[in-house]
Amino acid sequence: MSESWKEKVSTPALVVDYDILQRNIKKMAEFTKNRGINLRPHVKTHKCPIIAHMQLAAGARGICVAKVSEAEVFAACGVNDILLANEVISPEKIQRVLNLNTFTRTMVIVDTKKNVEDLNQAASKRNVELEVLIDLNVGMDRSGVLPGDAALELAKLIEKSTHLKLHGLQAYEGHLMYIKDFDQKEAQTKACMKNVVETKELIEENGIDCNVITGGGTGTYNITGTYPGVTEIQPGSYIFQDHHYHSLVPDFDIALTVLTTVKNKPVKGIITLDMGLKAITIDKGNPEFKGYGRKVSLGALSEEHCQCTCSSKVELNIGDKIEAITAHICTTVNLYDFFHVIQNGEIIGIWDISARGMNV
Amino acid sequence: MSESWKEKVSTPALVVDYDILQRNIKKMAEFTKNRGINLRPHVKTHKCPIIAHMQLAAGARGICVAKVSEAEVFAACGVNDILLANEVISPEKIQRVLNLNTFTRTMVIVDTKKNVEDLNQAASKRNVELEVLIDLNVGMDRSGVLPGDAALELAKLIEKSTHLKLHGLQAYEGHLMYIKDFDQKEAQTKACMKNVVETKELIEENGIDCNVITGGGTGTYNITGTYPGVTEIQPGSYIFQDHHYHSLVPDFDIALTVLTTVKNKPVKGIITLDMGLKAITIDKGNPEFKGYGRKVSLGALSEEHCQCTCSSKVELNIGDKIEAITAHICTTVNLYDFFHVIQNGEIIGIWDISARGMNV
Repeated sequence: MSESWKEKVSTPALVVDYDILQRNIKKMAEFTKNRGINLRPHVKTHKCPIIAHMQLAAGARGICVAKVSEAEVFAACGVNDILLANEVISPEKIQRVLNLNTFTRTMVIVDTKKNVEDLNQAASKRNVELEVLIDLNVGMDRSGVLPGDAALELAKLIEKSTHLKLHGLQAYEGHLMYIKDFDQKEAQTKACMKNVVETKELIEENGIDCNVITGGGTGTYNITGTYPGVTEIQPGSYIFQDHHYHSLVPDFDIALTVLTTVKNKPVKGIITLDMGLKAITIDKGNPEFKGYGRKVSLGALSEEHCQCTCSSKVELNIGDKIEAITAHICTTVNLYDFFHVIQNGEIIGIWDISARGMNV
Repeated sequence: MSESWKEKVSTPALVVDYDILQRNIKKMAEFTKNRGINLRPHVKTHKCPIIAHMQLAAGARGICVAKVSEAEVFAACGVNDILLANEVISPEKIQRVLNLNTFTRTMVIVDTKKNVEDLNQAASKRNVELEVLIDLNVGMDRSGVLPGDAALELAKLIEKSTHLKLHGLQAYEGHLMYIKDFDQKEAQTKACMKNVVETKELIEENGIDCNVITGGGTGTYNITGTYPGVTEIQPGSYIFQDHHYHSLVPDFDIALTVLTTVKNKPVKGIITLDMGLKAITIDKGNPEFKGYGRKVSLGALSEEHCQCTCSSKVELNIGDKIEAITAHICTTVNLYDFFHVIQNGEIIGIWDISARGMNV
């Protein structure tokens, strides 16, 4: 395939392979369809309304977002089923969620009695009903109440709340995503989900409707997504993949790279690229270089540059453009304002990463 | 001082202490004025035109930027003396620099014969003169030619170029910024600058004007800035500081924090804050928490959360807001769209980080 598109892209730039993106979308949608569960992709990975709509068109039930500001972006772009997979505790943000609910189904998760009361009071004042899920701490110790009695207690409080409705249970097993050994990951994930399903049953035995169990990520989609009783999965990274996830979950291909230019060759054996910490993240490891294997490897990384050591067999000159594959797609995408979308060697789209940043 | 302003700020958010900011600006401006050298702050740290204008009003000669897109933002905001402290090699970006030069002095640095020829040809076609500096590799091996004969050769080529003018030498000793032992840092910085000054003399002995030596950063400002022959320094981080730089250069105070909220208390001894990898960077170390010393320390950091271990003496509840100090201010600021500016316990400004990202 012609690589002349590279000349047209000013670097550093995020580049999406449209065909691979479509394949990843289709594969995950078919996986969930075949198993009779819902797909609710986490859009924090791409932060791009066009891609969310592609996922919905392929069959996703709705989306997950990480924060109110993200929910606002996707609601404004016509997504009408949003799970805000985080506690919303400040009075101002609670009001913003209720605003969204006037035109877009927006659900939130809760893990304290106080938060249930605050949400109910705010919804009551505006005379609306808010759907909530109980956030379970299934081992990550980041948020949530413990499965079992603690969850039941919260469910009872929600049941008594005049303006809240329990939608189900949120169970994100984030601490298990990166376990290398599949059998070990499977055993631990199943142990988590067993507790969650039993908690759902406990709540239902107490006469409270609890229809949904939602959880899972790209690292566990085929474990959580096949566990009896789980009704929905929330994977994000599968859409683009990164080399860290790809080494663990090769079912989805790498659809996104960072295009970068050789800017300098200061000394023999070293090239400097225009890709630094403001163009690619290293929180899950160093980037790799597409087509170069071990022949080009990252050395120093500063804000706008990286220095790479090159084997003597590599012929790269100043001005040449190469593609880097990040070890963490979510934090890398968050640095950019748009994607360049490529198909058959042509640029077929420049897509806004509308929910980039959105820290409030 | 009242902390009621914290209630008004939706988190996570960047918070600037206006008085400390002003003190830092004034202190660096006075340092350079007292030594009879120019100050050209690197604005990649704050990416904020208001702050650049504060620096210029306090006496800075101009600014440094890292890339063409940043130059465009600051030029549009009325800054009229810009050093683009990076090679500009792509034809499209060269044209953009020449565009800026029609209304704003914009200088670039060069380190190859080919780039000198490309710049000259482009400037010639538009019949304008472009000022350039020779980029010296003083040990960082990121860019630049070696001091001495290689630089002289480039100077001669620039001298012969019909539409280029040599402004001086760029010598960034970035590899020395974080040396802990001051005497060692001083010795190595002086050794770098000796080579640079001798290169300037060599060029001048060959009948070529070379007026400027510019270099230095916050870590070396008082070494490079006092070395005889150096005419200009380019510090960036001093404006806000971070705890990494502050431990090495305590002359400037910490003016910027990330305000974050306690969102969850999942298990005893752990609090979860709404500040993750999309709100603070860790490329130079973990954040610290203002006023908490070792009593609150970072554990796991995910995209939108961090889990901190807390000593039993800490009384922090869900909804409480605390301030984090980053270990690397430049990459942290780059994640946000605006600063909240605080003085005497009041929010006195919401300032756009207009040049955030700007990856092209």
